[in-house]
Order: sequence, then structure tokens, then C-alpha cells
Amino acid sequence: MPPIKSKAFINVDLGEAYGNFKCGPDDELFPLIDQANVACGFHAGDPVVMSQTVRACKKHNIATGAHPGLPDIHGFGRRELVLSPEEHTANIIYQVGALKAFLDREGMQLHHVKPHGMLYGLCCRDLGIARAVMAGIPPGVPVIGLPGTHMETAAREAGLVFWAEFFADVRYNNEGTLVIERKRLPWVLDDVKRHVSQQVEDSSVMSVDGKVVAFDLKDNPVTICCHSDSPDCVGIVKATREVVDKFNAAMGYS
Amino acid sequence: MPPIKSKAFINVDLGEAYGNFKCGPDDELFPLIDQANVACGFHAGDPVVMSQTVRACKKHNIATGAHPGLPDIHGFGRRELVLSPEEHTANIIYQVGALKAFLDREGMQLHHVKPHGMLYGLCCRDLGIARAVMAGIPPGVPVIGLPGTHMETAAREAGLVFWAEFFADVRYNNEGTLVIERKRLPWVLDDVKRHVSQQVEDSSVMSVDGKVVAFDLKDNPVTICCHSDSPDCVGIVKATREVVDKFNAAMGYS
Amino acid sequence: MPPIKSKAFINVDLGEAYGNFKCGPDDELFPLIDQANVACGFHAGDPVVMSQTVRACKKHNIATGAHPGLPDIHGFGRRELVLSPEEHTANIIYQVGALKAFLDREGMQLHHVKPHGMLYGLCCRDLGIARAVMAGIPPGVPVIGLPGTHMETAAREAGLVFWAEFFADVRYNNEGTLVIERKRLPWVLDDVKRHVSQQVEDSSVMSVDGKVVAFDLKDNPVTICCHSDSPDCVGIVKATREVVDKFNAAMGYS
Amino acid sequence: MPPIKSKAFINVDLGEAYGNFKCGPDDELFPLIDQANVACGFHAGDPVVMSQTVRACKKHNIATGAHPGLPDIHGFGRRELVLSPEEHTANIIYQVGALKAFLDREGMQLHHVKPHGMLYGLCCRDLGIARAVMAGIPPGVPVIGLPGTHMETAAREAGLVFWAEFFADVRYNNEGTLVIERKRLPWVLDDVKRHVSQQVEDSSVMSVDGKVVAFDLKDNPVTICCHSDSPDCVGIVKATREVVDKFNAAMGYS
Repeated sequence: MPPIKSKAFINVDLGEAYGNFKCGPDDELFPLIDQANVACGFHAGDPVVMSQTVRACKKHNIATGAHPGLPDIHGFGRRELVLSPEEHTANIIYQVGALKAFLDREGMQLHHVKPHGMLYGLCCRDLGIARAVMAGIPPGVPVIGLPGTHMETAAREAGLVFWAEFFADVRYNNEGTLVIERKRLPWVLDDVKRHVSQQVEDSSVMSVDGKVVAFDLKDNPVTICCHSDSPDCVGIVKATREVVDKFNAAMGYS
Repeated sequence: MPPIKSKAFINVDLGEAYGNFKCGPDDELFPLIDQANVACGFHAGDPVVMSQTVRACKKHNIATGAHPGLPDIHGFGRRELVLSPEEHTANIIYQVGALKAFLDREGMQLHHVKPHGMLYGLCCRDLGIARAVMAGIPPGVPVIGLPGTHMETAAREAGLVFWAEFFADVRYNNEGTLVIERKRLPWVLDDVKRHVSQQVEDSSVMSVDGKVVAFDLKDNPVTICCHSDSPDCVGIVKATREVVDKFNAAMGYS
Repeated sequence: MPPIKSKAFINVDLGEAYGNFKCGPDDELFPLIDQANVACGFHAGDPVVMSQTVRACKKHNIATGAHPGLPDIHGFGRRELVLSPEEHTANIIYQVGALKAFLDREGMQLHHVKPHGMLYGLCCRDLGIARAVMAGIPPGVPVIGLPGTHMETAAREAGLVFWAEFFADVRYNNEGTLVIERKRLPWVLDDVKRHVSQQVEDSSVMSVDGKVVAFDLKDNPVTICCHSDSPDCVGIVKATREVVDKFNAAMGYS
Repeated sequence: MPPIKSKAFINVDLGEAYGNFKCGPDDELFPLIDQANVACGFHAGDPVVMSQTVRACKKHNIATGAHPGLPDIHGFGRRELVLSPEEHTANIIYQVGALKAFLDREGMQLHHVKPHGMLYGLCCRDLGIARAVMAGIPPGVPVIGLPGTHMETAAREAGLVFWAEFFADVRYNNEGTLVIERKRLPWVLDDVKRHVSQQVEDSSVMSVDGKVVAFDLKDNPVTICCHSDSPDCVGIVKATREVVDKFNAAMGYS
């Protein structure tokens, strides 16, 4: 497979603290990433955390997007909750609107929307949910999601730019879907580098069964996700940064 | 005292349902009012209720504002919760932004912001909190509040238009403050009419002790609040509508 | 089919208010019923409501049980939420324990446990969930549920007495399962009476397709559920009371 | 002042995780402490966490008590929320009952109740709240609290055993009240040892102003609190353990 056709970016979920409860070493990650997905208060995040996160993104010149989730702080948006399409759409409007208000105050653009956790998974596997979610995204705002899924279909139907997302710290099944772990397992950093290199240089991944899975990325822009709640996430982001910077330089992408 | 200097409007808190829990006969009230204060999900309301309420406001051509509250569904935003100024500001940004997103989709303007319940009371009596709340309101958006309080002071400091609010179904203390009832008591409709008439025609109220309390309304626009959870609220709104329409016509206000 | 083998009782879900939000005319229902299922704070109810409801049950000599639900006030426990068995068990222990504490103070026994809403439905159709729920019920406490389902199986496995439940205000499918309505539809009271009469006199129901569905009630005690959020629920409970009292008297059950 | 009259114990707040959000290195603390205050789901903790914490307490033979808080997960029970006495009492019944259910299943006794955070502070300074809280504690269950406060008064009025509590990692004002920090500051371990030594050997503390504050402990049993969210809490608990064990041995307390 060919390398990806445009500059590779790194996105990370940030602002996933909740009151006194912390989640992820956000302060160490800001200098290392290109794009932030900011939690909007439904699965994590709260208004103060959102405010602080948005300001830090501005300071570090990070493209800032909304990271809406299922309404379930206790389950961190990772438990399946069956909602009507009307509920899904309204939940997205609400969360994205709330984040946008913090961006407006800082004179920042809403760069993208990326659904969180179980909502992301539901959008990949259920076209009806994907459409309901897209229906809540403001016109013209790009979506980040897994390529080749209902999420991509629904984003295109809605006329939204679709960013194809790869993962630095998640394994893949033979079908190109993600292996979901209840708790994130540790990665050897050399494996992270290999995983990311193959994604950007070959538009493919090695599945957990050792099969090469190729992705048709079309002309979608590409971004690599690292999770802020992975063990040694700072190490993972740095390893990804190294691979991505080298790749972008070699390809002359800027 | 003189009559009020401009057209009298009627505002009502709407969209205070929460999931299956209902609150107030919103459907009967839409045709009767000028301005709606829409709950934003912190003390009541949820994304679906907000979406439906905003659309109904559009259909009935109602000027629609945000009604942010303390984060306390269980206490309906009527219990005191001590928050930092930073929390207050962020809570307003979040809630107003969420409502604005629903308005944006319908091509509607955010007409005003009116704090709910205990937050309203705190803004009246605590200048620090009033300032923190005003700091969260987008530039240029008017505020509805009790005249002569810290709320008015803080709104003016922030350069926001201040709507002076009277109440059709709340009694007043000798100082012009409101008599807060845990549960709203019933009103005789003739008393409502007298109460409202005195407010618009004389810029004053009769306190619970039988004292005439005059308000200095300055050049603020004026709006009369009726509560959707008062017993016979439809009757109260209709009585207020009758008084207000007659007054506006007599004064040639339109 | 034969009539039911023992006295018919009436059970109603009570205490489903939440803070200022009301649900059901509990005060009118207390004098009319035999058994109360008291909400435990996860889908509805709160500590004050539970305290008041338990005291009212004592005053009216009502056998009082716990009505645990999924942790979802916003969805009133009627949305599916996927939980682990460990979560289900712990949720039951927590909720039943909380209710039992209010009963203990009044010197009352915990009469039974009846899962609420979607949790009830999940217990009927999923043996794993039914077992996880039963694992959270204190030894010796009876369970109320739909006869012939996984709920009955799991209750028997756990050595718990199983009360077979009929419904005065819910229609049945041909398989004896319940027709779930998002909002409860109104009933003609004569239909309620016919529905209940057939249940107690013939151990069967007429399905929505007009088919007679017979239940094997074994030696389980039997109780008829009326819902406090049905339109005219007081009328429905009175109609049920009339049929049940007449039946019990005719059969010599006491 | 004299040394304390009976064996010194160590208590720690445990089980303050919430879903995916972690709080405190509980696993490292279990082997080091005598008494656990287990969060009950209102300020932190959830049913699964409670279940796991209770079982770990059993395994380590720790005397296990309830740690009820204000209903405010977001604020971790550390923000003031104004509740009615009826609400306070019902909240305690609910939370203590829920914890007791987990203890019952393990054949464990409820050893004590210790209010959490802001609720603890309110009980110290407001006799009405202290009485409302004590009214929710089951008869015969001891209370842990700050000596010489309304909490002690109300516990005695209610006929409950009162454990006088000292703090290894909190500073004191001249009046013997606690210096509340929004975020816990680090301690030098030698200071911890001095602080604890003075408490057990002299029934006094050195205030932040360098004044010796003596406590009248009466015949109350005494327990030293260490906080699981203090920086280096394991170090603090170990330092406290060392001082306490040496003191108990020297005094012949067992």
C-alpha cells in the first residue's frame, strides 16, 4: 500500500478530569501534539476543566475539537447506553455548543468533532447512530473517525470533511476494527513506533492475528490518536511524535 | 411613581422537564408569552427538552433566552451551593453556549440570559457572584434581573443591557427583595392583576407588610415574570397578559 | 386454565418522585394497595422520598419491598445500559441495603425485591443478568417477577420465593411477554376489569393479537401490578381492587 | 497534658474511586491501618468500589466504618451545599444502610460512622446539622469526629460512643479547628512524626501560629486520621504507624 498522501498529525483526548478526579498528564502532552479532543462534560470534563484545557490549547497552538460522549460520567462513556436518534443528535448539539462557547471567548475555531469511547464505537458499527450524531455537528466542522466504517459514510452523507484516524496504542482485528480493552494494556515503545510507521508509510496495520490489514484512505486527511489514559502515555506520544515528524519530513509534508 | 417607560413584556421559565419528569404546562404557555427563559440542563432541562423548547419558541415567535442554574437537578437549582467565581463563570459559559447551539440551528438569536432560582438570588445579594456570572455571558447579550440589586450593578459594569424584572406571582419584602417560598403558594387571580397593575402603572409593589415599595427602573426595559410551576400558572399568565396588554395599549407602547 | 391458587394481591411502584419532580399520586394510592415497590434512588426516588414513602407504607400497613433500577435518573431506568454482572450485583446490594435501612428504623420487614423497568425486562430475557441481580438480594427475601421467564429461573436457583406477577395496565404479546410502551397509553376501566378477571380466574391473558395466553403459575403466590404513572392510575387501581376483592372473597382466600 | 488514655488507632478514608476515576493507593494502605472509612457513593465510591473495598477490609482484618458525604461527586463532597435537617438525616440513613448491606454479606460489623469532608466540617460548626446527621446513624454505632466540637456534643446527646480524632497530615488553628486546604500540601515525614507524637503523648497539637493547643479527650477512645489523597500518603501512614506502634507498646496498650 502507498504511504498516506498528506501530513500526519497527532491527536489526543484531553480535559478528561472531573472535579477532583484527575485523568491523564495533560500538562506534559500539550507541547507534543497537534490536535486536542476536549471532553465536553458528558463522559468526563466539567466547565472549569474545559475552560482551562481550551486556554492551554490556545497557548500551545493546538487545533482544538470537541470530544462528545455518552451521558455517563460513572462509566466514562465506555458503557453501552441505548438512546434514541433524537437523543443522540441533541446530545451532540449540546456538548459541541458548550465547547464552542469556550473557544469563542478565546477567538479560537472549532477544528473538529470526534465522538468518545462507546459513542465512537457505536458510530462505527451502526449507521443510524452515526447519522444521528452527524446531524448534531455544525455545518462545515470536520469529523475524526475510523476509516471504512459507518462513521465515514455518515460524515460524507452529511457533507462533512472526514479525517481518517489511526491509533498508536490500540491493536486491530483482522477486519480493521479496534480491539477494545476495558483497561488499556502497556505497550513496548518500539512496538508503538513500528505500529505507527506501518500506518503512515503503508496505510496498513498488522492485526492481532498477524495479518496485514490495508486501509483505503481515499483523499482523507490523516491523524494518529494516542490515548492519555494509556500506561506511559507520554512515552507513547513522544515515540509517535518521533515517527510522525520523521515521516512528514521525509515526504516533504508540512 | 410614574408608569414604566416602555412596553411591558411577559417572561416565563420553560423547558424545565427532565427526562420522564415533567414540570409546567409549557404547551399552554407558548401562545401567551413574549419571552422564554429556557433551562440549560444544570437545574432542569436536558438536550432533547431544550431542542423541543427552542423549536416551539421559534414557532410562537418568542424571544428566547438562556436560563442557567446551579448544577443541582435534585434540588432544582434552589439549594445553595458554594462555588468559586471560576466555577460560576465556567458554568455560565457552558450552559449559555449549549443553548446557543440549539438557537443557531434554528437561525434564532440569543435574546437574553436570566439566572435561575438560587443562582438568581445569589446574584442579587452577592456582588462577587454577580460579577462571576456576568463574566460568563457573551458580549452584547442582555440580562434579566431584579432592579436595584448587585445583579444590576454587575450587568452594568459588564456593559450588558439590563432588563428590570417584576413578578406576577411572587410577594415582596419591604426592601424590594423577593419572598422566597419553598413551594409556590396559590394566588387569587384578582390579586395577580392588582399586583401587576401597580408594577406597570406605578413602578411599585405592595410589600407583604402592606408597605408601598417603589422601584427606580431608570431607563431599563421591563419584563414581568410568571412561574410555570405556580399553581394555576396558566390562569396567572392569562391574568398578567390581560393587564399588560391593556397597559401597553393605553400607553401607546408597541 | 384454573383460577390462581391463593389470594390475589395488588402491588404498585411508589416513591418515584425525585427532588422537586413528582411522579404518581402516591397519597391516593396508599389506601388502595397491598404491596409497595419503593424506588431506591437509582432510577427515581431520593433519600427523603424513600423515608416519607416507607413511613406512609407503615401507616397504611402495606407490605414494603425494594424497587431497584438501573442507575439512570434521566432515563427513569427505562433505557438499556450494559453493565457487568459484578455491577448489577453491587447495584442491587446497594439499593436494597439503602431501603432496608429506612425499614429497619420503622421496625418493618423487607417484604420483597422487584426490579424496575428496563432492569426487570433484562432479568426476564437474560439469564446472566437475572442471576447477577438475584446474587444481590439478601437471603430469604422474595422476588416479584414475570412467570415463566429467566427471572423465575434465577430466583428459584438462588433459593428465593418467587411471586408471579400479572399486570392490570399492560398488554401482552403472544408469548406472554409484555408490550412495552415508551409512554403508557390510557385504558378503559372495563377493559382493566376484564384483563384482571381473566388473570385471576383463568391464569391467562388475551394477547394484543386476540390469542389466549395461559401461564403456568405453579405454586407461586400471585400479585397484580398497577403502574402509578398510567393515565388515571387511581381509577385503574380501584377497578383492580374491586375485581381482586370480589375474587378473593368468592374463593374464600384471605 | 497527659498522654491519651487508651490505645491509639489509625483510620484512613478508602474506596474513594468512582468508576474509572481513581483516588488514593488503597491497595498499599490496607496492610498499614486499623480502621477504614469507606465512601458510600455520595461524594465518591460506587457500589462496585464499595464491594471491593469491604472485601479487602475483611481480608486485612480492618474495622470498617461508613464515610457518608454530601451528595456531590463533582465537588468530592468538599463544597458547601445547604440541605434541610430532614435531607441530612435521610442521606445518612441511605448511605450507611447501603454500606451496611455490603458488610452484612461478609459477616462484618459496622464499626463506626465518620462524616466526610464538608459534612464533617458542618457537623463541627453547626449543632443543628450535627444533630440531623446523628439522627441518621443506627443506634449503638460509634462516631468518629473532632473532639470539643458540636459533633461530639450531638453524638453524646444521641447516646453514641464518640471516638476523638487527631490528624497526622492536617494543621490546626489556635482554637483546635482544622486548617482546610483545597488541595493537600506535602508534609516532611519528620514533621508528621512530631505532630503525631505530640498528639498521643501530650493530647495536644502545635498550631500553625506555634501555639500549643490542648485537647480535653475525656474518656473517648482516640484514632489518628491519615488522608489517602495527601501527597506521599503511604509515607505518612507508615510514619504514623511507627509512632503509634511505639507509643502503644511503651504504654502497654493493646
